[in-house]
Amino acid sequence: MKIAQLQSKFVAIRNHGFFQSFVIAVIVLSALMIGAETYEGIPLWFHKVIKVLDYFVTIFFLIEILIRLISSESIKAFLKDPWNIFDSIIVITSLIPFSGHETVLLGRLLRIFRVLRLISIIPELRVLLNAFFTAIPRMGYISLLMFIIFYIYAAVGSIIFVEINHDLWGNISISMLTLFRIATFEGWSEIMYETMKVYPLSWIYYLSFIFIVAFVFLNMMIGVVVETLQEEHSKESLKSGEGETAEVHWIKEHTATIEARLERIEKLLEAQAKKQQDIKEPT
Amino acid sequence: MKIAQLQSKFVAIRNHGFFQSFVIAVIVLSALMIGAETYEGIPLWFHKVIKVLDYFVTIFFLIEILIRLISSESIKAFLKDPWNIFDSIIVITSLIPFSGHETVLLGRLLRIFRVLRLISIIPELRVLLNAFFTAIPRMGYISLLMFIIFYIYAAVGSIIFVEINHDLWGNISISMLTLFRIATFEGWSEIMYETMKVYPLSWIYYLSFIFIVAFVFLNMMIGVVVETLQEEHSKESLKSGEGETAEVHWIKEHTATIEARLERIEKLLEAQAKKQQDIKEPT
Amino acid sequence: MKIAQLQSKFVAIRNHGFFQSFVIAVIVLSALMIGAETYEGIPLWFHKVIKVLDYFVTIFFLIEILIRLISSESIKAFLKDPWNIFDSIIVITSLIPFSGHETVLLGRLLRIFRVLRLISIIPELRVLLNAFFTAIPRMGYISLLMFIIFYIYAAVGSIIFVEINHDLWGNISISMLTLFRIATFEGWSEIMYETMKVYPLSWIYYLSFIFIVAFVFLNMMIGVVVETLQEEHSKESLKSGEGETAEVHWIKEHTATIEARLERIEKLLEAQAKKQQDIKEPT
Amino acid sequence: MKIAQLQSKFVAIRNHGFFQSFVIAVIVLSALMIGAETYEGIPLWFHKVIKVLDYFVTIFFLIEILIRLISSESIKAFLKDPWNIFDSIIVITSLIPFSGHETVLLGRLLRIFRVLRLISIIPELRVLLNAFFTAIPRMGYISLLMFIIFYIYAAVGSIIFVEINHDLWGNISISMLTLFRIATFEGWSEIMYETMKVYPLSWIYYLSFIFIVAFVFLNMMIGVVVETLQEEHSKESLKSGEGETAEVHWIKEHTATIEARLERIEKLLEAQAKKQQDIKEPT
Repeated sequence: MKIAQLQSKFVAIRNHGFFQSFVIAVIVLSALMIGAETYEGIPLWFHKVIKVLDYFVTIFFLIEILIRLISSESIKAFLKDPWNIFDSIIVITSLIPFSGHETVLLGRLLRIFRVLRLISIIPELRVLLNAFFTAIPRMGYISLLMFIIFYIYAAVGSIIFVEINHDLWGNISISMLTLFRIATFEGWSEIMYETMKVYPLSWIYYLSFIFIVAFVFLNMMIGVVVETLQEEHSKESLKSGEGETAEVHWIKEHTATIEARLERIEKLLEAQAKKQQDIKEPT
Repeated sequence: MKIAQLQSKFVAIRNHGFFQSFVIAVIVLSALMIGAETYEGIPLWFHKVIKVLDYFVTIFFLIEILIRLISSESIKAFLKDPWNIFDSIIVITSLIPFSGHETVLLGRLLRIFRVLRLISIIPELRVLLNAFFTAIPRMGYISLLMFIIFYIYAAVGSIIFVEINHDLWGNISISMLTLFRIATFEGWSEIMYETMKVYPLSWIYYLSFIFIVAFVFLNMMIGVVVETLQEEHSKESLKSGEGETAEVHWIKEHTATIEARLERIEKLLEAQAKKQQDIKEPT
Repeated sequence: MKIAQLQSKFVAIRNHGFFQSFVIAVIVLSALMIGAETYEGIPLWFHKVIKVLDYFVTIFFLIEILIRLISSESIKAFLKDPWNIFDSIIVITSLIPFSGHETVLLGRLLRIFRVLRLISIIPELRVLLNAFFTAIPRMGYISLLMFIIFYIYAAVGSIIFVEINHDLWGNISISMLTLFRIATFEGWSEIMYETMKVYPLSWIYYLSFIFIVAFVFLNMMIGVVVETLQEEHSKESLKSGEGETAEVHWIKEHTATIEARLERIEKLLEAQAKKQQDIKEPT
Repeated sequence: MKIAQLQSKFVAIRNHGFFQSFVIAVIVLSALMIGAETYEGIPLWFHKVIKVLDYFVTIFFLIEILIRLISSESIKAFLKDPWNIFDSIIVITSLIPFSGHETVLLGRLLRIFRVLRLISIIPELRVLLNAFFTAIPRMGYISLLMFIIFYIYAAVGSIIFVEINHDLWGNISISMLTLFRIATFEGWSEIMYETMKVYPLSWIYYLSFIFIVAFVFLNMMIGVVVETLQEEHSKESLKSGEGETAEVHWIKEHTATIEARLERIEKLLEAQAKKQQDIKEPT
């Protein structure tokens, strides 16, 4: 009895608007601390303040996760939401004591991921990120096609151009990095001019690569964005009942009822006509 | 009585096409003067001419604002239009006498904003800018998401790469600027090659950042533009009564009247059928 | 009588497929000659061949224009088509004899514009260019807004940064060129780092400029392209009778006939009902 | 009889899921080998392993093609699918024994194209590439327009700027390459500054070129992508019967049946009215 009471209390805390705002404030504070630490020449007392605040943030996050864990129906229900798992991992890893130079750096890096908790706590950002993740499989085959193009060009590049510049075409992975650089138009003409001194026709290699990658990349990006937008637009239109999609849907449904009504009317009239025939004939 | 007469006269002046054109001409003149002053080696007499013209422009702008103030119903009505406030601030600040080297520079900078009055006086530009401002909140959460991504990457960068290059990764704000530079593909490969000498796997940092930012940015831009376009398109279509959206709307409304008419017809027929039944039965 | 006969013969020549192809071939030949002349070390005899060919091309173009002029109903009708005027100007200017070093260069430049005749002779390219020209006024106000933004930023830049770098911020026109360079992300970070040494906050100037320009530019480009596409799409759909727009239009028209038919039916039924009432009542 | 049996067996092998997966695995292995060979300092035994594996892959590919050839109804049917021809060419060219330094390089390059077999074996990638090829003719005239623009600008550039920089404006082909570099914004400002020293107005050349190319290119890319997307979207919607396009189509068809039904009803009613008239009149 008491546990249920406690649990309902925790649910109340979790759903309280102030609690949510306070959690966001603590995450922002934690983010600011991470940022402040990167400045050089900050006084020693400030470092100490940050260290104390950091202990507070760590404990607060732990308490917050526990509140959410207790307030959920079961551990299974809690773990069902991937954002809960995400938050738990971030909180738990920040509990590991890091000492020694190497691990301290790792500790600092892990604490940065606390900022990502802003995404998990603000619903609108969670929606955006979900949209981002649902778009990934749609881009799957186009990404694979792009990877194959990069791989083939990198293989050709590292076979033909390796003797010209080892730093750019040393092996297939270095070549792929170079090709990515070319795809962003970053100093690609210098790379081309260098190889054109040996192979004057090598501009074909660069221009064909730029054309293909630009086309595939734009196709991928614009395609995914426009399609996602249209779907959202249609869904929203159907939900709100306003807009073209909703109106078309409304017309469709009403056309169906009109048809049904017309069928009834026709049957009525045919019955009437038959009756009149019956009346008339005996006469 | 006399004030009302004067006011109606001022309204007439304000709405006169010639007055509008003259204001635009003065603004353009003012803009040209600002531009002319940036050229070196212009003779002293030209400077003097500009100074005199500048007095004229300042006084003219003051008079123009006063005309618009008097011609409006009340000061409250005048201040209700944000563009009036905008114009007033620009005119008033240009009245402040600046002397001394430092403040003269400030005075020159303030006078540049007079060019912005072109936007407030040409209705089409005002519409464009309003569209721009209404698009900002829509981009709000995506901008926040982008800021979080920049912040996290900057924090990671300024922790790991600070010893490699202080000028690029010195603290979190310098790192964010460096990341913005990487996002525009400006010399990003040099920055990467530098850190790859120490951390050979740091290309993951750059490539993941470029992919995420390009995707989020394109999403934001294309999304906002296409959506705004479609809405405007639909609105215009509904207004003019032409185009698909308007036709769908027309069909929807007429489908409703068809339905109502059919209901009436069915009732008529049912009543008829009942009557015939009544006629027949007594027979 | 004879002139009319001659004219109809010329119309036949003009519309002949072979004549069209031959004109295209001569234009391509003329283009290749222009290209060939840019190569150094070509033998003297080749230059002479080109010169002879050039005479031939010039005369051929003159004949072709005359054929088109004679075959048209009147000079007025001929001049009505802007492409005819365009072709005539190109042909006439190439008739001017150029001698002396300076004018020879001008002559060579004028001959390049002959390549543009490819656009005027191939109908599909003419359609594309017409689309391009019709899009210009639509971009008008956005271009004006963009120019104002450039002008204001250039004025601010040439007032504040002039002492830092005269080559980049010397006067308002140099500054506008520098800003255009920044808008294309070309070495913009170097320009920023230079001014940041004197004004550490000048990154605000660059970042705000890049954001505004990127937004306005993308708005302009994507907006115009998508809108033009949709209009063409709708027009084509209506023409061919296929696709959504055409189907919606079909439904609209048929909904109107359905409504008219229903009105007739309702009137018929009401008349019937009234008659029955009349029959019944006297009984 | 026996051949038909063998053939049906081969069809069974070809369509077996495991066979498909195994072929993909061998292609990936072949791709990895190509990549591995580009690394320097790999031990000699590894080279020998690769050579042996390469024999195996070559023979396997030959067998696989033969299986597909035998399992198809006739050689004509086999050659009808362009992907089969594509695969055959890749396999046959890899059978040619290359020896000597020059030809060994060619052999290595030809083997890279085996990776392209991934596209021919995975249906989704084949669909993507088909979409890419069908988009090419649509881009045809815009590409031609773009080529003409490049050609004219290159001709002008190589006539005016040739004395300033032979490496950039030496002849029309070098100039076109330089213009392509300018179109990608790669160090274009340096090129402009160089020519502006001699011709101060040459910025018009660069800015007009950038504007035209950016507009035409974006037009081409966005246009093709958005149009292709919309078509696919409509087709999918009509196939699945869901979405706006499908609903509009459904409404259209049902509007037609409603009309037909209404025509029948009207005829019925008119007949009825006539009969009543006939009944009434004799009375």
